[in-house]
Amino acid sequence: MHMPSHMPPSPSAPPLYRRLAAHYRGAIEAGSLAQGERMPSLRSLMRLHDISLSTALQLCRTLESDGWAEARDRSGYFVRKPQRLQMMPMGEPAASTSFDPAQYVGIHARVSDFVARRRAADVKVNLSTARAAPQLYPAEALRSNMARALRLRPELLSGAPPLRGDLNFRTALAKRAVSSGMTLSPEEVLVTNGCIEALNLALRAVAQPGDTIAVESPTFYGLLQVLESLGLRALEIPTSPQTGLSVEALELAFQAYDDIKAVVVIPHLQNPLGSVMPDAHKERLVRLCESRRVALVEDDTYTELLDVDTMPRAIKSWDRGGNVIHCASLHKILAPGLRLGWISAGRWQARVEMLKYTLSRHNEVLSQIGAGEFMGSGAYDRHLRRLRAALRVQRERTAEAIARYFPAGTRLNLPNGGLQLWVELPGMCSSADVFDVALREGIAVAPGLLFSNSQRTNHFLRINCGWPYDDAVDNAIRRLGRIASTL
Amino acid sequence: MHMPSHMPPSPSAPPLYRRLAAHYRGAIEAGSLAQGERMPSLRSLMRLHDISLSTALQLCRTLESDGWAEARDRSGYFVRKPQRLQMMPMGEPAASTSFDPAQYVGIHARVSDFVARRRAADVKVNLSTARAAPQLYPAEALRSNMARALRLRPELLSGAPPLRGDLNFRTALAKRAVSSGMTLSPEEVLVTNGCIEALNLALRAVAQPGDTIAVESPTFYGLLQVLESLGLRALEIPTSPQTGLSVEALELAFQAYDDIKAVVVIPHLQNPLGSVMPDAHKERLVRLCESRRVALVEDDTYTELLDVDTMPRAIKSWDRGGNVIHCASLHKILAPGLRLGWISAGRWQARVEMLKYTLSRHNEVLSQIGAGEFMGSGAYDRHLRRLRAALRVQRERTAEAIARYFPAGTRLNLPNGGLQLWVELPGMCSSADVFDVALREGIAVAPGLLFSNSQRTNHFLRINCGWPYDDAVDNAIRRLGRIASTL
Ligand SMILES: Cc1ncc(COP(=O)(O)O)c(C=O)c1O
Ligand SMILES: Cc1ncc(COP(=O)(O)O)c(C=O)c1O
Repeated sequence: MHMPSHMPPSPSAPPLYRRLAAHYRGAIEAGSLAQGERMPSLRSLMRLHDISLSTALQLCRTLESDGWAEARDRSGYFVRKPQRLQMMPMGEPAASTSFDPAQYVGIHARVSDFVARRRAADVKVNLSTARAAPQLYPAEALRSNMARALRLRPELLSGAPPLRGDLNFRTALAKRAVSSGMTLSPEEVLVTNGCIEALNLALRAVAQPGDTIAVESPTFYGLLQVLESLGLRALEIPTSPQTGLSVEALELAFQAYDDIKAVVVIPHLQNPLGSVMPDAHKERLVRLCESRRVALVEDDTYTELLDVDTMPRAIKSWDRGGNVIHCASLHKILAPGLRLGWISAGRWQARVEMLKYTLSRHNEVLSQIGAGEFMGSGAYDRHLRRLRAALRVQRERTAEAIARYFPAGTRLNLPNGGLQLWVELPGMCSSADVFDVALREGIAVAPGLLFSNSQRTNHFLRINCGWPYDDAVDNAIRRLGRIASTL
Repeated sequence: MHMPSHMPPSPSAPPLYRRLAAHYRGAIEAGSLAQGERMPSLRSLMRLHDISLSTALQLCRTLESDGWAEARDRSGYFVRKPQRLQMMPMGEPAASTSFDPAQYVGIHARVSDFVARRRAADVKVNLSTARAAPQLYPAEALRSNMARALRLRPELLSGAPPLRGDLNFRTALAKRAVSSGMTLSPEEVLVTNGCIEALNLALRAVAQPGDTIAVESPTFYGLLQVLESLGLRALEIPTSPQTGLSVEALELAFQAYDDIKAVVVIPHLQNPLGSVMPDAHKERLVRLCESRRVALVEDDTYTELLDVDTMPRAIKSWDRGGNVIHCASLHKILAPGLRLGWISAGRWQARVEMLKYTLSRHNEVLSQIGAGEFMGSGAYDRHLRRLRAALRVQRERTAEAIARYFPAGTRLNLPNGGLQLWVELPGMCSSADVFDVALREGIAVAPGLLFSNSQRTNHFLRINCGWPYDDAVDNAIRRLGRIASTL
């Protein structure tokens, strides 16, 4: 087996032992190193890669904790396939589905109840919110940008916030959008209070109370709340845990219902599934909605957390006539303490601008300046690489623990990025019951029933992987597994 | 005439010449000094008040520029009544009114058109927005509070914003509310993106699309936009330029319509009228709405700009069963660059909290910290005193210029505080035409038709007095007067 003896280091690259670990992991995945085979000894690793004993040790321990090797007393390390890879993948949704004709959502009460109970409880390990640990965000750089702006631009506080948002920030967003294939001018970018406000604006721009909106099933519960609060009906469209929204099923839905006013999709790292739509599906979806004159709303909240070098194309990149409304957020990827989102609403832009003005006026500008400067520098990409790498490790460890601790028959897809895992419990184990028991033990998870108006997702859990995988998290996953086994 | 020879100075009190000017002004208003009478000479002023020549001169010039004295060549200063006091006050609205049964508002298009044209124009003097000049806001103190928070609390950016808003800020708001007679716990205060978001939340909490909302006529155009965007109908209730909403007229409206879901009032310094509701009216209004089980929404945006020592009681102070929703803002009084508002929603509090979460999640926290610290210090009251004093001068000068330059028959009430004057043009002079012509000359005003869905207010103008009264403003008022005369 050929291995490069020197890997060129780059300033932002991961440390040597991590790069070597990735190399061995590739070899195992490719089959060059077989399950059960003995790993080279520490001594041969040192010679082979010209590394120190401590680096060789770090390499082996990393492979072990990532689940790719196990130590056997005195005989060294042996190759193993991580247990997570042996879990059954989730099933695809049924291809043809009969739709529930009157899906008024009733999600408010569910979410309120869930949120209230979580708040009232003494939560020690929070695996329920979709956010990474504070230390994974570039707070230092942002706050120094913001402090500088406060010092140099006192008029920020005493004058009105700028129209549509800070120009420099909108310019940075428009530039960044190019890497997803979108061509936007800063004038087409309107800054909002998070993606959630953007979704509110998008739906209010295209639909009236009583109208029907097609959404993925399962989907982000916040979206279902928005629909309910606006008096809109949610039509849940089957969605693959791998490839996202089923465009075929949507076509059937269009045939069955003629009052669908919009389709809302989370094309990349869908919440909660983690699915990623292939380009061909996205293009077909754009053309389908275009031909039906149904607004297509794209929620881009998680795309930057994809563990890839080249960003996939945004749905909006196929848009020709302004039929796609692009909504996005920096909340999960840059700073959870800032409420920064944006919208580019195609042919509804003027209406969305007026609605935003009527709803909350323009956003405060300070955090936009901080974020805009950061995004305009190389630091942004460095931050994202670091964040993605940390999340990858955390997802894999969490998945490994689920494979180890959860009852046989538990299913899981390991998404290629993002903050969370969507776990299917075996049998008809109720996630609401798991939630209840776990909460009493100080562990919070998001029960599947939050993500659909149907009963289909009751035996699913969404588990956050934003926290460094430490003993507390490991214990929590073990407890969850035991709870799921006994229920 | 007795005059105190020494006035005790206090650190935050206005300068001596201003206090003396206020004293003389009182004497003129009380009639102790008659119109046309000669003012004491500079020399006697110096002796009488034990002041320097320069202070005596400042005193006389202040009286002159405030309109209370005029200089006659070589003979000194003579008492005069300001011209503004000779203008006709505005008429009261008709006591009995037939209501327009289907007042769907169509204000969006009007406002869009107005805003778009103002933006496209090269505005040199902006008398259209309700905001004070930047130098009248305490930007320095706020930004040093915010910079300190950034330095000491980096987790502000990397953790989620606190539930309901910053606790210290909510505590400061709740404390402040005591001086308006309200007893609120910080838990009953929810921070919003300005008062406009608070109004959106209030109306969504209590009404459904198609419902009717009673509002003052005329009223803040932003409120009419909110109603329209939510699919609500506005029923305009006659409102006195002096005492605000006519509670009798509202009673008649309740008899005529049984689908009124809420009443929205701006009890103090109503926008655009400047009216202030007497306590007895407020209490009667609370009881009326309570007995009808109709939600009463109070917009408290301008109260702190009232030129009084003791704040009037908020409508909510009479609330017993949680039927009053209090909405407020710091936007006009503390910092236009911050989007800080709040809501206390009585029996709808839980629903409003859920709607806020669904609409925009919790507000960013940094500006709340800055504002909360400022409000917790004596600096807040000092700032307000200074702001009110500056606005008083600006309102009076502006009114004086209107009296001088506008056509005979122009009517005006001089409100006891606030940022703006509501001016009734004689004849049926169209404010839309005035707006058009003025805009071409670089002067922006708010035409009356923005403030009502009826045609009643077409011959009114709202003129902002937030800017220091300088030559540019003086010229703009003169031009406006000429335009109104020739149309
Ligand atoms: C898919 C999706 N869209 C939107 C949001 C809300 O984003 P923001 O916090 O920017 O309002 C979330 C947050 O959980 C989400 O998961
Ligand atoms: C009466 C009234 N209420 C509310 C608002 C909006 O306040 P904010 O800027 O806090 O959203 C205004 C602003 O013009 C106003 O005049």
